[in-house]
Amino acid sequence: MSVRAGIVVTGTEVLTGRISDQNGPWVSERLLDLGVDVAHITICGDRPADLTAQLRFLAEVGVDLIVTTGGLGPTADDLTVATVAGFCGRELLLDAELEEHIASIIRRWRGATVDVDAGPTRAGIRKQAYVPVGAVAIPPTGTAPGVVIPPATGLPAIVILPGPPGELQAMWPAAVAAPAVAEVLSHADDLQQATIRAYGLQEAELAETLRSAEAEIADFDRLEITTCLRRGELDMVTRFAAGDAPVYDALLAYLTERHGPQIFSTDGSTIEDHLIGALDGRVIATAESCTGGLIAARLTDRPGSSAYVMGGVVSYSNEAKTDLIDVPAVLIATHGAVSEEVAAAMAEGARGRLRADVAVSTTGIAGPDGGTEDKPVGTVCFGIAIAGRPTVTVRRRFPGDRERVRALTTTAALHLLVRELRSPAP
Amino acid sequence: MSVRAGIVVTGTEVLTGRISDQNGPWVSERLLDLGVDVAHITICGDRPADLTAQLRFLAEVGVDLIVTTGGLGPTADDLTVATVAGFCGRELLLDAELEEHIASIIRRWRGATVDVDAGPTRAGIRKQAYVPVGAVAIPPTGTAPGVVIPPATGLPAIVILPGPPGELQAMWPAAVAAPAVAEVLSHADDLQQATIRAYGLQEAELAETLRSAEAEIADFDRLEITTCLRRGELDMVTRFAAGDAPVYDALLAYLTERHGPQIFSTDGSTIEDHLIGALDGRVIATAESCTGGLIAARLTDRPGSSAYVMGGVVSYSNEAKTDLIDVPAVLIATHGAVSEEVAAAMAEGARGRLRADVAVSTTGIAGPDGGTEDKPVGTVCFGIAIAGRPTVTVRRRFPGDRERVRALTTTAALHLLVRELRSPAP
Repeated sequence: MSVRAGIVVTGTEVLTGRISDQNGPWVSERLLDLGVDVAHITICGDRPADLTAQLRFLAEVGVDLIVTTGGLGPTADDLTVATVAGFCGRELLLDAELEEHIASIIRRWRGATVDVDAGPTRAGIRKQAYVPVGAVAIPPTGTAPGVVIPPATGLPAIVILPGPPGELQAMWPAAVAAPAVAEVLSHADDLQQATIRAYGLQEAELAETLRSAEAEIADFDRLEITTCLRRGELDMVTRFAAGDAPVYDALLAYLTERHGPQIFSTDGSTIEDHLIGALDGRVIATAESCTGGLIAARLTDRPGSSAYVMGGVVSYSNEAKTDLIDVPAVLIATHGAVSEEVAAAMAEGARGRLRADVAVSTTGIAGPDGGTEDKPVGTVCFGIAIAGRPTVTVRRRFPGDRERVRALTTTAALHLLVRELRSPAP
Repeated sequence: MSVRAGIVVTGTEVLTGRISDQNGPWVSERLLDLGVDVAHITICGDRPADLTAQLRFLAEVGVDLIVTTGGLGPTADDLTVATVAGFCGRELLLDAELEEHIASIIRRWRGATVDVDAGPTRAGIRKQAYVPVGAVAIPPTGTAPGVVIPPATGLPAIVILPGPPGELQAMWPAAVAAPAVAEVLSHADDLQQATIRAYGLQEAELAETLRSAEAEIADFDRLEITTCLRRGELDMVTRFAAGDAPVYDALLAYLTERHGPQIFSTDGSTIEDHLIGALDGRVIATAESCTGGLIAARLTDRPGSSAYVMGGVVSYSNEAKTDLIDVPAVLIATHGAVSEEVAAAMAEGARGRLRADVAVSTTGIAGPDGGTEDKPVGTVCFGIAIAGRPTVTVRRRFPGDRERVRALTTTAALHLLVRELRSPAP
C-alpha cells in the first residue's frame, strides 16, 4: 500500500519570489525517506481563500497526508491554523496552558523589554494558543506551536508547522510521532534511494545511455530515476522498492561500464568528501582570483575544516599576486594575469606562504567584461601545486554568466585537486 | 480589472527537494512586475496525471494565465507539451521547420560528435518539435522550444517554458510578447512595489509598529505588506495600486520616525550598493578567519568589482595570520585568535599588505565546536581599518548553526563597513 502526500507552503514572501522556499524541499525529502510518495507541493500567499482552495485540491486528489508550513506567527496576516480548522469544519479552542507556555518563552527571550501581559503582545500570544477541536498541539521551539489534525471522512491527516526552517525542523520529530501521523506512515512503502554523481558527463549522453539501458535491463521500469545538473556535476537519483535492488545493481553496472571515468560517487558522497580523503592528512591552501574566495568558503563550510585548511589568498589585483604570494610581476606582464604561467606561480606561492602541502589557484575572466579573442569570457586557468611534484596547470573555458562561471570554476577546482592528489607521483 | 495567474513547476528533482526551484520565484516576480496577481505556484513530478490535476485545479480556481516550467527535454520523462495538449483537448502536430531548426542547433553545439540523423538523437529532436494545434512555438534558446496556447472556454492562456533557468529567462520576452499572452496582460492592474530594508530591527518590533500603523493611517488596508528576514536583514515589501501611493508615503514616514536608524534602504538598494557608495573611490581588502572567504566572494560577485576590491586573505590558521598579514604571534598567544586585538591586527595587516585604503577582518567561532564559557559558539570579533583613522573593533554574538553564523557575520561586516566609512573622521 502506498501513501501519498501533499505539501502546502504558505507565505506571500515565498509566492512572490522574494525568498526562496526551503521548507517544501526539506519536508519532501523527509517524507521520501519515510517511504511516502510526495505528489504535490503547492505555494500560496497569506490569503485564506487561496489556502482553502489548495487544501481542497489536495483532499480531492486523495492524498493521505497534508503538511502545511508557515502562517503561524502572532500577526494578523498569519492565518493558517484558523483557515485549516475552517476547512476541516473544526472549531478553535483556546488552550490556556499553551498560552502560558508561549508567554513564558517570550518572557525568557525578551526579558524586561516587553510586557507579555500588555495589549498587542498578549493578543499575539493568545492568537497562537488556539487549537482546533480534536487536534493535538506540537510544542513550539520558537513561539508558534504546530498542530496535528487526525484524518476524517474525505479529509487526510493534516500537519501544521511554522515557517522558520529552524523551528520547523526541530518540531518535525514530534509531528511524525503524533499518533494520527504515525498511523498514516505505518502504511508507507519500504523504499530505497541511491545516488550516482558524475563530473564531465553531459546530460544528453546519460539520457542516451538510459534509453539503451531501458531496452536491455529487465524490470527497468521499476526504477524511478531523476537526473539533475548542479554546479557542473550531474546527479542521478534512483528510488526503488527494497525487492528491486537487483535491478538497480544491474543499472549501476551498466552505467559504470559506459561512464566509469566520469562517475566519481555511487554512495552519496560528495566531491568534498573525496577531497578530504585524497588529502589524507595533508593541509591545503588556496590562491583565488576570479573565484574571489568561493573555493576557500566552500572548503571551510564544514565543521572541523581547520584541521586541513591553512587558509588562502584572494589575489584580485596584480599587486596582491606579487606582494602576497610572490608571483613575479614580469610573469604577469609577459603572459597576462589570466595564464597558466601565472596560475602555476599563484599555486606555488600560496603553498609556500601558507606552509601548506597542497595549493590550488584560479585566475580567469568571469565576465561579463574583460574577454578578448584569445581569452574569451569564461576562460579560467588553474594551478595545482603539491609538495614534491611538478606543478600542474589546466586551462578551461566555462559557459554562462558571471555567477555560473564562478560556480563551475569552484567545482572544477575541487575535481582537479582530487584527480591530481590521487594520481601517482611521477 | 485584475489578472490572476498560476505557475506550474514540473520536475521530480524539484518535487523531491534535490534541487531548489529557481523558476517559480523568477516567473512570479516577472508577472508581479507586469501587474499580475500570482495566486498559486504548484510543483509536481514527471507524471502526467499529477500535472493534469494541477492544470485542472488552476483552471477551476479561475486563473487567467498559467505558466509551466520544465519537462521539455528530448527524453521520455519530459512530458509537459503532450500533457498540456491533452488537457486542452488539442492534437499535437509535427512542425518540420522547427525540427530542422533544433537539429541545426545540435549540429552547431556538438559538431561531429553526434549524428543528428541517427535513431535516438533524431527521435529526441522530433519529440521536441511537436506543437499543439492552434498554439504558437517560442523559438528555443537551448534546444527546447516553448509553446503559447491561447485561452479557450473554461481554459486560461497557457505558456509552456523549459526548465533550465537560463533558457527560460532568455525566452521570457518572446513569451510575454505572444499575442495571446499580451492580450491577457493588457487587463492587468497598474501596481507599484516598494522595498524598505532594515538591519538590527526585530521582526516582532516591526509587527508591533505595523499594528499601530494600521490604527493610525487611513486606507492602510489598501497596502499589501510582506516582511522577511534574509541573512540578518529585515526586508519589507509593499504592493499598492498607483493611486494609493500617498498611503504608502504615510507608512514610510511612520516607519522612518520609529525605526529610522535601522532602516538603511527605502529605494531597493542593497548594502553592497551602499558600501560601494561609501567607499567613494577607495579600495578595500579583507582578512577573514571564520567567514573563510565569504566576504571576499560577496564583494567580488558583481561585475567590475576589481575597481574597488584589491583582494583578501583567508587566514584560517594562526601561521597564516602571522606570515601573511603580520599579526604578532604574541598577540594571538596573549588574547587568543578570537579577540578584538587580533581582529584589529588582521585588518591593519591586510590593509597594509594589500595596499588598500580600507580593510575589514573577522575572527570568530562558527561552531559547532570550539566554544568556551568566555567565547561561546557564535562569538565573532571584527576589525575595521581605514587609512588615517584609528582602527575600530567590535565583538558580537550571533545565533544559529555554523552556516547561519557565517552568513550573519558576512552581512554584519558589510554593515559595519558602511557605518564606519560614513562616520566623520575623528
